[in-house]
Amino acid sequence: MKRRQFLAAAGVAAGSTTLARPAIAQANPEIRWRLSSGFPKSLDTLYGANEVFSRYVSDATDGRFQVQHFAAGEIVGMPQAFDAVSNGTVEMVQAPGYYYYGKDPTFAVFADIPFGLNARQKHAWMTHGGGNELVNTFLARYNVHAVPYGNTGTQMGGWFRKEIKTVADLQGLKFRIAGLAGQVMQKLGVVPQQIPGGDVYPALERGTIDAAEWVGPYDDEKLGFNKVAPFYYYPGFWEGGPTVHLMINKAKWEELPKAYKAIVEAAASHANMDMLAKYDARNPAALRRLVAGGAQLRPFPQEIMEAALKAANETYDEISAKNEDFKRMYEHLRAFRNEEYLWFQVAEYSFDSFMIRARARG
Amino acid sequence: MKRRQFLAAAGVAAGSTTLARPAIAQANPEIRWRLSSGFPKSLDTLYGANEVFSRYVSDATDGRFQVQHFAAGEIVGMPQAFDAVSNGTVEMVQAPGYYYYGKDPTFAVFADIPFGLNARQKHAWMTHGGGNELVNTFLARYNVHAVPYGNTGTQMGGWFRKEIKTVADLQGLKFRIAGLAGQVMQKLGVVPQQIPGGDVYPALERGTIDAAEWVGPYDDEKLGFNKVAPFYYYPGFWEGGPTVHLMINKAKWEELPKAYKAIVEAAASHANMDMLAKYDARNPAALRRLVAGGAQLRPFPQEIMEAALKAANETYDEISAKNEDFKRMYEHLRAFRNEEYLWFQVAEYSFDSFMIRARARG
Repeated sequence: MKRRQFLAAAGVAAGSTTLARPAIAQANPEIRWRLSSGFPKSLDTLYGANEVFSRYVSDATDGRFQVQHFAAGEIVGMPQAFDAVSNGTVEMVQAPGYYYYGKDPTFAVFADIPFGLNARQKHAWMTHGGGNELVNTFLARYNVHAVPYGNTGTQMGGWFRKEIKTVADLQGLKFRIAGLAGQVMQKLGVVPQQIPGGDVYPALERGTIDAAEWVGPYDDEKLGFNKVAPFYYYPGFWEGGPTVHLMINKAKWEELPKAYKAIVEAAASHANMDMLAKYDARNPAALRRLVAGGAQLRPFPQEIMEAALKAANETYDEISAKNEDFKRMYEHLRAFRNEEYLWFQVAEYSFDSFMIRARARG
Repeated sequence: MKRRQFLAAAGVAAGSTTLARPAIAQANPEIRWRLSSGFPKSLDTLYGANEVFSRYVSDATDGRFQVQHFAAGEIVGMPQAFDAVSNGTVEMVQAPGYYYYGKDPTFAVFADIPFGLNARQKHAWMTHGGGNELVNTFLARYNVHAVPYGNTGTQMGGWFRKEIKTVADLQGLKFRIAGLAGQVMQKLGVVPQQIPGGDVYPALERGTIDAAEWVGPYDDEKLGFNKVAPFYYYPGFWEGGPTVHLMINKAKWEELPKAYKAIVEAAASHANMDMLAKYDARNPAALRRLVAGGAQLRPFPQEIMEAALKAANETYDEISAKNEDFKRMYEHLRAFRNEEYLWFQVAEYSFDSFMIRARARG
């Protein structure tokens, strides 16, 4: 080859490489997104999902797609975080939908409502029961796309200063419980209190409030409620399987290359189940420590559970009468739930029942 | 710029691009792996995990990492598939460990053993209880690295031609049940039968065998056992939460770029929980259809469950006495299980109990 031909060939090669470059850059662009969590970093189970998720996203893209995560309030207050995602100021927020119950009670249905689904059923509803499609149809009007991002399992019913034995004992009870669950409990005479997490301990200690619900043994232990309100009730029937969502600005989501979408979905799915596994692995030892530290376990009396179920159903009817979105999503979830328990009562429940009895006997 | 300088500059550009190319190729190499499933394609829940997994891996890598999946026997027989992965002839096999119980009973512990963990507890043990680390320590000697890849939830106890009411009814009962579960049932007088899936229906019909266990409503329905063995027992106490693993040739796993490892892990984790969600979403309607088609649901009598638990514990002691690997893994799992049920009996179980009773009342 003559020198001129060689250089020309090199030129062509350089040209075609230059043409190819933008395609590579487009396929794997460098992206830096911000994620505002609804939780403080001290809640390592809930907040930890962000670490798991962002590490996978970064690793899977050789560091090209970075998600910076921030505790609640660090870059935007929790009440404003959803709006920030909606308008694209922040790309993502980690939150259970019921944080935005005040906007529309429909937000509560896909996080959790009293007497909803357990964690496994909730996951089945979201991914193979059409649940998360309903969520995204609803959230599209806010310019938000959401993927399931965590679950705590059935929560505890909270810490009470005094034992409660009948529905009458709930009359005037000042109970820190929020949103739809508070609304249901109000029908039983409870006076729902909304107090930030950090203020709950002194309020319980002074008797400003009579009871407070939080999450479950592992998270509750950090706040030391057992020292000031020893009766630890179960189950938290208003959170049988609460889902935390990763809510993403929809326009930005749709702009992501297909590969990044797949990576976000798989990493979020991993974080989702990883949170539940962490809770399941850590709660037993925390429960032991709490009981050793004076916590007295009490099941909610059947009478209270029954009255709460009735109150919940009334509440759902009332909201459904004036909110079509709530009605649609709630009825879909309720139908799914009834079918799920038809099956769960057979194999799962009878296996667990036997294992629990066998364990009790040693 | 003179023409000559321009061409030289183009040459330099071409040269530097050429230098950069291998780096890109190394970071995102084109890879084509083969995955041999332990299941036929007709089992869309179990086999479906391969479709979910390979699609995510392909999408996340813009098609550079392709996993071709094959039904059991298509490229290698199931008994040989593990060895094929071990020696690198095939990169991956999808199987529950107990398929290789004959090699070493330790393989059964990380799939499932009688009176083990339920699906959630199993997932917690694998990912946050140290379980899968034990699995990989054990499998390293076979040059295999495994990640959890699916779970069916608690299975059914199988189809019986006649009712069984006492342990005496198990005497001489020809029951299609394999591996460790068969060994345990043998202590109760059962004569375990190993018959390929396709031959079970005629064997039940002719009475060559008396009973057969398979999976649960959704999978069982396809085989039509309800027509020839109407008594459908529960729970399948030998499979409270069976884990299917994705087993990968260890040397090839270690050669994967970090990004591909992250993608495989997240996609496998997604497939893992997706399988359980599919079962949970599909089993209820299948159960309804089976009952409408003549299946008669029966819980195993308490006497049989108790006798089986005793037989299982004896079996574990016997195997542990001569197999250190089994002993180590089994004792680790057992300790985890006992702690798990301490916690699960509180919030989870009491929530499910109430929901099941409320549903039964309508």
